[in-house]
Amino acid sequence: MSILVAVQGYKAETFCKALERIMPEREIVRHGEPFDRRAVDYAVAWKHPAGALAGLPNLSAVFSLGAGVDHLMTDPRLPEVPILRVVDPDLTARMSEYVVLHCLKILRQQMRYMAQQAERRWEDDLDQPPAAKVRVGLMGLGVLGQDAAFKLRMMGFDVAGWSRSPKTVEGIATFAGPEQLPAFLARTDILVVLLPLTPDTAGMVDGAVLRGLARDGRVGGPHLINAGRGGLQVEDDILACLDDGTLASATLDVFQTEPLPEDSPFWSHPKVTITPHNAAMSEADAIITLIARQIVRHEAGEPWENVVDPATGY
Amino acid sequence: MSILVAVQGYKAETFCKALERIMPEREIVRHGEPFDRRAVDYAVAWKHPAGALAGLPNLSAVFSLGAGVDHLMTDPRLPEVPILRVVDPDLTARMSEYVVLHCLKILRQQMRYMAQQAERRWEDDLDQPPAAKVRVGLMGLGVLGQDAAFKLRMMGFDVAGWSRSPKTVEGIATFAGPEQLPAFLARTDILVVLLPLTPDTAGMVDGAVLRGLARDGRVGGPHLINAGRGGLQVEDDILACLDDGTLASATLDVFQTEPLPEDSPFWSHPKVTITPHNAAMSEADAIITLIARQIVRHEAGEPWENVVDPATGY
Repeated sequence: MSILVAVQGYKAETFCKALERIMPEREIVRHGEPFDRRAVDYAVAWKHPAGALAGLPNLSAVFSLGAGVDHLMTDPRLPEVPILRVVDPDLTARMSEYVVLHCLKILRQQMRYMAQQAERRWEDDLDQPPAAKVRVGLMGLGVLGQDAAFKLRMMGFDVAGWSRSPKTVEGIATFAGPEQLPAFLARTDILVVLLPLTPDTAGMVDGAVLRGLARDGRVGGPHLINAGRGGLQVEDDILACLDDGTLASATLDVFQTEPLPEDSPFWSHPKVTITPHNAAMSEADAIITLIARQIVRHEAGEPWENVVDPATGY
Repeated sequence: MSILVAVQGYKAETFCKALERIMPEREIVRHGEPFDRRAVDYAVAWKHPAGALAGLPNLSAVFSLGAGVDHLMTDPRLPEVPILRVVDPDLTARMSEYVVLHCLKILRQQMRYMAQQAERRWEDDLDQPPAAKVRVGLMGLGVLGQDAAFKLRMMGFDVAGWSRSPKTVEGIATFAGPEQLPAFLARTDILVVLLPLTPDTAGMVDGAVLRGLARDGRVGGPHLINAGRGGLQVEDDILACLDDGTLASATLDVFQTEPLPEDSPFWSHPKVTITPHNAAMSEADAIITLIARQIVRHEAGEPWENVVDPATGY
């Protein structure tokens, strides 16, 4: 039996090599090369071409290489087998590194200090609030959001969270659903977006949401950090809000079009920090080890873990 | 009775106003203005002119405005009364914000990504180690060092600490004294200096120490963060080590001469991030509240807290 790798734009060969090393008893076949479709019992996918997973009569499961599965769910010919996501403590820790780094960057006004360093002079008396006076609002309270919430609290921030369905997270105020979104936004100085991308969340971070953020905070206006998915954000609205002062800054790891087009205004906008969709890149070996463990468990009769709910799409 | 404020170069008037507001029953007198020397029972000092605290026959104690007291201990005419430092949870939290921010900045290669953003292109495949593979070494394991150690561990870093006298800190390897310094340095990728400045530690961060740091780490060579005191570092050695590749970067909040002279090479060195000695600036009200509490406790017969040991100077 064999494992089909249908991975685009994301170091496909690195993952094939890791599979060959970690599961040497399996044959690893690649989308785009000839292979026996009847022999495939598992598929590993990331941004696969639509239909690439169809016509595999003995397929038992599809593994996403990451926590997000939006790249899979848009395929109308997705087979009706369990879709499994990676829930990797390493990936979770990396996402929290990114979120805490950029929240601290905003809190400590690091961009202003770097600009002053470049000008060889210190401005006197920048107001420096303690973290306890700065309100971070996390949109998305899954595994990633909850880990970020814990670490931000530990750094002293005043943290709250919003999710589509009600959730309880120790030590933070939580808000749920569209009706509680305005109250959540109104107490948020730094909005951190970690939502899954689904038909319900697509384009959710728009001008109305950004205009709902707190205006009475201590960090010079509200700030946006999106480390979730580019499809969550309306980029024209973000740019308009940066330019009219609604937003003090935007830190974006993800974009509507990736890689970010060369002519995007985000590259050179003075209020924007961008990174190349690497907030939570895990190492291939770590991800493949988790997939191998699921396969071994499954073949010993254990239930699958981290199964995507087709109804919600995450 | 009155409180003498002998504060230079550090918002003296802000502290006088806070004293007047928080202890309205006391007279607040200022160094440099006429006052009754016999009426002074407490002094609040920061970088006072040598001798300013002498000739106060009824003085009971001197309060430093910060955690460091090196600015006091160099005065040969320092009165022989208890010298008390501020141990302020807010100040400690701010120092940890600074340390965690800059360790994450190094871990996540934020300076490289910012340079790439400015050039409008992403380099492929920057190696991104997890925090667990990056070794932070804290020099100084007092209140500040221990809080930073805890928060760095929580972010996933591999943390160790060094102090002059042996200390045990939960969850981290500790090293003590000159004989264990080489082993500590050899396992350190990011050196964070939070030592007190005393005759024993002055100039301690020199070329020999920097050359002792790990060469086998995952963050492109060793990095230095000094948020302690400028007098701890030999700046010519730091510059030489940056230029010959011994050091990958330096992040400095403190300098041998402050404010940093306009012609210092640190302003424009491409491997250097500087800040204006504000890593752990607490709010005047918070500091004065702690001083007021000590005075009330003392006058109720309680022992002083946070008394400096004249033998060690911290």
